[in-house]
Amino acid sequence: MDIQDRIAALRGQMEKHGCDIYIVPSGDSHQSEYVGEHFKVREFLTGFTGSAGTAVFTAHRAGLWTDGRYFLQAREQLEGSGITLFQAGEKDVPGLEEYVEEALPRGGALGFDGRVISMKKGLELEEIARKKKGKIIYSFDLAGAVWKDRPPLSDKPAFSLPESCAGESLEDKLSRVREAMEREGADVHILASLDDICWLTNLRGQDVSYSPLLLSYAILTEKEMRLYVDAGKLSDGIKKELARSSVRICPYEDIWKDISMLPEESRILLDPARFNYALYALLPEEASIIEKTNPTVFMKAVKNETEIKNIRNAHIKDGVAVTKFMYWLKKNIAMAKTEGQKPLVTEIDAAHKLESLRREQEGYLGASFEPICGHGAHGAIIHYSTSPRTNAALLPGTLFLTDTGGHYMEGSTDISRTFALGDVPPHMKEDFTAVLIGGLRLSNAVFLHGTCGANLDMLARLPLWERGLNYRHGTGHGVGYLLNIHETPASFHTLIREGTSAVLEPGMIVTDEPGVYVEGSHGVRIENELLVREKEETEYGRFLHFQTITCAPIDLDAVLPEKMTIEERRWLNSYHAEVYKKIAPHLSDEERGWLKIYTREI
Amino acid sequence: MDIQDRIAALRGQMEKHGCDIYIVPSGDSHQSEYVGEHFKVREFLTGFTGSAGTAVFTAHRAGLWTDGRYFLQAREQLEGSGITLFQAGEKDVPGLEEYVEEALPRGGALGFDGRVISMKKGLELEEIARKKKGKIIYSFDLAGAVWKDRPPLSDKPAFSLPESCAGESLEDKLSRVREAMEREGADVHILASLDDICWLTNLRGQDVSYSPLLLSYAILTEKEMRLYVDAGKLSDGIKKELARSSVRICPYEDIWKDISMLPEESRILLDPARFNYALYALLPEEASIIEKTNPTVFMKAVKNETEIKNIRNAHIKDGVAVTKFMYWLKKNIAMAKTEGQKPLVTEIDAAHKLESLRREQEGYLGASFEPICGHGAHGAIIHYSTSPRTNAALLPGTLFLTDTGGHYMEGSTDISRTFALGDVPPHMKEDFTAVLIGGLRLSNAVFLHGTCGANLDMLARLPLWERGLNYRHGTGHGVGYLLNIHETPASFHTLIREGTSAVLEPGMIVTDEPGVYVEGSHGVRIENELLVREKEETEYGRFLHFQTITCAPIDLDAVLPEKMTIEERRWLNSYHAEVYKKIAPHLSDEERGWLKIYTREI
Repeated sequence: MDIQDRIAALRGQMEKHGCDIYIVPSGDSHQSEYVGEHFKVREFLTGFTGSAGTAVFTAHRAGLWTDGRYFLQAREQLEGSGITLFQAGEKDVPGLEEYVEEALPRGGALGFDGRVISMKKGLELEEIARKKKGKIIYSFDLAGAVWKDRPPLSDKPAFSLPESCAGESLEDKLSRVREAMEREGADVHILASLDDICWLTNLRGQDVSYSPLLLSYAILTEKEMRLYVDAGKLSDGIKKELARSSVRICPYEDIWKDISMLPEESRILLDPARFNYALYALLPEEASIIEKTNPTVFMKAVKNETEIKNIRNAHIKDGVAVTKFMYWLKKNIAMAKTEGQKPLVTEIDAAHKLESLRREQEGYLGASFEPICGHGAHGAIIHYSTSPRTNAALLPGTLFLTDTGGHYMEGSTDISRTFALGDVPPHMKEDFTAVLIGGLRLSNAVFLHGTCGANLDMLARLPLWERGLNYRHGTGHGVGYLLNIHETPASFHTLIREGTSAVLEPGMIVTDEPGVYVEGSHGVRIENELLVREKEETEYGRFLHFQTITCAPIDLDAVLPEKMTIEERRWLNSYHAEVYKKIAPHLSDEERGWLKIYTREI
Repeated sequence: MDIQDRIAALRGQMEKHGCDIYIVPSGDSHQSEYVGEHFKVREFLTGFTGSAGTAVFTAHRAGLWTDGRYFLQAREQLEGSGITLFQAGEKDVPGLEEYVEEALPRGGALGFDGRVISMKKGLELEEIARKKKGKIIYSFDLAGAVWKDRPPLSDKPAFSLPESCAGESLEDKLSRVREAMEREGADVHILASLDDICWLTNLRGQDVSYSPLLLSYAILTEKEMRLYVDAGKLSDGIKKELARSSVRICPYEDIWKDISMLPEESRILLDPARFNYALYALLPEEASIIEKTNPTVFMKAVKNETEIKNIRNAHIKDGVAVTKFMYWLKKNIAMAKTEGQKPLVTEIDAAHKLESLRREQEGYLGASFEPICGHGAHGAIIHYSTSPRTNAALLPGTLFLTDTGGHYMEGSTDISRTFALGDVPPHMKEDFTAVLIGGLRLSNAVFLHGTCGANLDMLARLPLWERGLNYRHGTGHGVGYLLNIHETPASFHTLIREGTSAVLEPGMIVTDEPGVYVEGSHGVRIENELLVREKEETEYGRFLHFQTITCAPIDLDAVLPEKMTIEERRWLNSYHAEVYKKIAPHLSDEERGWLKIYTREI
């Protein structure tokens, strides 16, 4: 059954249910960024495998909206499918909502699976249908109905984080969340986002790609918590633990029944961006709904001291793997050069090598996101994924960009390093040095409490802006603790918009990852994770600063020291001294000698 | 009649009208920052002369809310009046709304003069009354009723800016505003803010302290503009000019009658922050109201090339006055020192000297805001005003902070300079140098179009934050062209909040004025005005930068060059070279020789 047959089958379903338009996003019922195999309906229907993208079908047309990260990949994967690619955010490309509003006939029906659309988005679609005097149909999974050999929901076992990992008990977390409920005047709080539930319960699972999350819902009241989860995934130990905190385990699918049976007078706290539309539609009509960001979003963003201690360890392990990888890479390129051989290493070989080095580390669980390993021009594709089709040999004379990370029992990592392969031309070194300076300026900022990421973002951009360069992505994102690698609300970005930039609080971890991307030539990205810490309190207020917790050398082969100020060089030298101190003990003698050179003072 | 008698008389009025609480703000009917004598009701009732502050009266209590700029002054001026000072924004000090809500009895009446309260604020007060099942009474000026010898409304003549000053005709401005009305779907646009009306009509007046504004309202439709103004202020020439653009002149007070007679089906564009509550309350109930920032707010923020050319000239004139002042000041202090005399100069002398030097410049109209001249510890009071009561002699060994500005026919200026009086201790020089570096970093930023002031603000703060210092004010504000010296929407500040930070557009002018304030010791503020200009367009976007248009030396006697990087010194040197080039031709030989030294390379 090829893509066109699948779409034809979907259209049959649409006709049967009277849908004029049907929307298929890439999410699961929990608005996760990455999803389990069961939920990859959009991929099934379109052939496009990117993590973000929404398909829209009418009786005669089919379109896919995706963002700049995936334009190239989508163009290739959609070829011959008859599906039109809409490059979201580009000039003259209609937005999805705009397109749907135009395509929906007056009085028509707009269909989607209400479970995989957020409440927020669902309300917007409802409004579009209302404007056209039409209706929405959200109770049927038409795309799922077409997918005959659809993988079942994951049934992999859950695991529990001991307090030495989590640093705070379920009991204590529950009482903090209940206090927040009281402050908001809520007597019920419904959680549908997996990372919020996993953080709260100290449970993890294996149900979602790249994130150790457990498929679940939760309903919280003053007295009780109901956890909706496949009980088969829970060990007896976990069940006992949960019972001790008055957590009742209910079948995963029972949420649908239970939510409609909540008392009419309930005051329900929920987060419209982290709650699916179908759940929302089942809430008792009389209940009052308090729409707020889940309190757990802020709580988990601020890491506790146990988590911080663990994360530091995870970063040393990760740094050892990356350092060994860099050593291996440099050696291979040098060998190929001196022996005049064809290069032995490709992007995929490199990705495997790095993964295998991480796997050697104790407590490694797996990659924390889709790894990016881009040679030369591939480095300029911001979210390049290596594939046999595009796999490139690592030829010297250019840069090799890697953006990878791992989950360890002690926390998650996200690191970008760009490596010079042999001698690289001066303009690439200039780009590399400007990116390095931007990252250093941000990581060495001192700031008053109350400062948001959006206030600081441009410290990283300025050295690029001065040269007429920029990168079309945020400077950094929050990092989850064995949860989602991209975690709100901490971030560095240029947008000044309400709710998009949180005040930086001690204990938050944010990435610092400026870049330069020169189409057809090369890309540079250097990424460290920064931990927000207290610096000093004066009569003018509480001052904070960052500690860099990522621990791996920045390739001096690509640095032009003469382009850096004395202070910037001092910052880099002191970072490299720290890297050597922490990583050297875990290396072979040969590697250690090499690292000494690659962390030398400049 | 002393303050207590006045308050007693007000309470008599309150009783007569059945008001439980009466609120007296400092505004006029146009929500102006500075107001004419007629509108200084709050000053009349409380004795407090600051430009910002609101008084609240109940049958037995009286309170005044003001901000950090005025705490000291208010404390002194309220002494013995029985009025409690509420230091707004301080810990444990209730906000005005909070206080009013608590003080208003259930079912009580909350009174204010609806003309001097903005629509936005009036709606908030309405909501407070509603919560207490009470009502608002907004149609009576009870405070005015008490003020027997109240000055009448200003009747000073208006003047018109020729196109060589304004750069755009009323005709062209009207058509741009009408296009904006059409975009918003409005058929009526009512303007109540004086700077918007003055910008639109190219008229100016003499009705408000420190701002050359004309008391007026305007109602704009597709075909016609009605200008509500005292016709006695308009020359025949102006009347003819207005008639040519179909502007009908109506008596100032007729706005009240006309607004209630607008057609029921009107779609009225108005700006709730720039519109008084009493006008709002008179709008036809059936009309639809489009609440938006006045289109003129954005239009006047972007200066046209004629205005820019003129403003550059105004800054040279202003720079000549400030340079001559600095020469005079340095000479006086030196004389006092060498001759062992008592210092001859006080804060007030200095303020007069600076004013008289400005008055020597062609086209000078007057001060553009309340001048600040603070010696030593007075410099640490952010909005210090010199007064005979606090007037200090300018003793050597400390700093002297001046923040002053003028209106010229060619535009308005706002400049802060801090001067070393004789030898000053190293810690003051350190503060001065850190402030200087912050200002230079901001003024030398290159940034992508789309950047807001809030993104850049911290460039000026970082050198202070690194030393545990901060200033409790924004880094900068937009500057009007012969209008208000503090003009929205351009600004530099740390707040990340929707609507508070505009995207910086070429042609905008924003001040760059970091500071350090050490209570009881000294203050430093260095302020230049920056003009946003295009720099270059690359494949990454449109890059902008600033041109510094303020033109006066920064006192090298207070600079520690060794604390500055090579680049920062280069920035300062190139600024000083520019200052010398532009100012020297307007000086005497002696002054010129002196300026050469004070603009030397460091």
